[in-house]
Amino acid sequence: MKLCRFNDNRLGLVEGNEIKDVTAALDVLPAARYPLPTTDLLITHLPEVQKAASAAAKGAKSFALSDVKLLSPVANPGKLVAAPVNYKKHLDEARTDPQIHHQNQVAEIQRVGLFLKANSSLAGASDVIPIRHPDRRTDHEIELVAIIGAKANRVKREDALKYVAGYCIGLDITVRGPEERSLRKSIDGYSVLGPYLVTADELSDPTNLDLKLTVNGEPRQIANTRDLIIGVAELIEFATSFYTLYPGDVLFTGTPEGVGPIKPGDTIDASITHLGSIQVKVG
Amino acid sequence: MKLCRFNDNRLGLVEGNEIKDVTAALDVLPAARYPLPTTDLLITHLPEVQKAASAAAKGAKSFALSDVKLLSPVANPGKLVAAPVNYKKHLDEARTDPQIHHQNQVAEIQRVGLFLKANSSLAGASDVIPIRHPDRRTDHEIELVAIIGAKANRVKREDALKYVAGYCIGLDITVRGPEERSLRKSIDGYSVLGPYLVTADELSDPTNLDLKLTVNGEPRQIANTRDLIIGVAELIEFATSFYTLYPGDVLFTGTPEGVGPIKPGDTIDASITHLGSIQVKVG
Repeated sequence: MKLCRFNDNRLGLVEGNEIKDVTAALDVLPAARYPLPTTDLLITHLPEVQKAASAAAKGAKSFALSDVKLLSPVANPGKLVAAPVNYKKHLDEARTDPQIHHQNQVAEIQRVGLFLKANSSLAGASDVIPIRHPDRRTDHEIELVAIIGAKANRVKREDALKYVAGYCIGLDITVRGPEERSLRKSIDGYSVLGPYLVTADELSDPTNLDLKLTVNGEPRQIANTRDLIIGVAELIEFATSFYTLYPGDVLFTGTPEGVGPIKPGDTIDASITHLGSIQVKVG
Repeated sequence: MKLCRFNDNRLGLVEGNEIKDVTAALDVLPAARYPLPTTDLLITHLPEVQKAASAAAKGAKSFALSDVKLLSPVANPGKLVAAPVNYKKHLDEARTDPQIHHQNQVAEIQRVGLFLKANSSLAGASDVIPIRHPDRRTDHEIELVAIIGAKANRVKREDALKYVAGYCIGLDITVRGPEERSLRKSIDGYSVLGPYLVTADELSDPTNLDLKLTVNGEPRQIANTRDLIIGVAELIEFATSFYTLYPGDVLFTGTPEGVGPIKPGDTIDASITHLGSIQVKVG
């Protein structure tokens, strides 16, 4: 199933280029009072939401996918976890280009581990990416993103994909500079997810997906997830050896080679096999 | 005003060593439905909560502070922001001790910037700190913590303290190793806040506070916030030059010299002038 969030917090069931408005399915989610739940409610209750969405789709109002404002498919992630330098050719370019490494060591992912992006940087595909530091280089980074579906602690790689609710496209927008990744990649609007969540039952194998990113039509990043140094299952094993992952937690799996600068006025087009495409403006 | 959260999500008004149960004051907070608010509801509505807590205190049931289970005074922070190496003598020890630097560069805070701790690492003073990697060195780090009270974006240092809702004691528990701080400091239970929130109207000047941390009664960290390289106001200016801070966001201001290992069975006692003290067990 493909689920999107659109316009004024509406829920959509995506079929081809059409969205059926299944917002009524959100009625299965419980109301909350302080202190609020710390996991994403929709992802926590995904099976019930999917069932209710199927029922609500009959006779639902339809929209063209291209006509709506797309929001982040996950509304309330507990944390955004991200993998650095997880494609060999991107590690090579990061070590070669002083505009990327800024005289910092660029170590392998096995040494660096994972980093965090601020929840406040979350955005949808229809949001304009607001360049924060025009005096610095700001780069696009396309990534396969996995959304965690169940509480996961000390999970082994052979079980790890059972903990994935689904996948989407992610842009890990990055301002270059000397600071730690968790600062430079946490700017408002710099964590774009979209266009929709593809549930794991529709995509059981994330290990052979083409990624493509263009800027103003010019190809910049063309790669395949088979070249991930540490794949999705191993990333979950590694992450949960340090901390617990919860429903709605977001896992950016790392960007391939070809990162490059973006500037106001640019349009980024990013697509991943089975996950659709997003067109995102830079402002 | 001193507000704590205790036992089964109860709200307490702290007076000396006594807590008055003012949970009824939480009725001023609105109910929520998906998508949930992304700021902490209590901090967002702090003035109304304070007013309702004062009213509820009359005739309220009392508890001894030492008899309750203390929870994190902030329940739903949007993000945990933290300052690395923000006392000169700690920078010196971090650069000298290979068990701390692990062959990584240890740069000044002005170069490193700020890092993030996972929301899932949040804990209260009555929670046991669960050592995750007994094969590695795990350290205590006492810190002054500021809780953001209002949306803050591109704030100047001279205005910054107006955006602080209050202060508390923080423990930035850290496993040593080569990985990025945002991983090593994000382990479940490794971000301890307590014992209560002291609202900013009771502590207008955070620049001259004594910090003291002992382990099993042995003094480890004794310092004063006057020795912060970048003070609270400048940290908020710096943070909001990169991203927006929201009500309930937590700002760990950095630890002074004297960090050292903890092991299961230890008891950490941490105190800061005007902010009380916490006794935390390591498990």
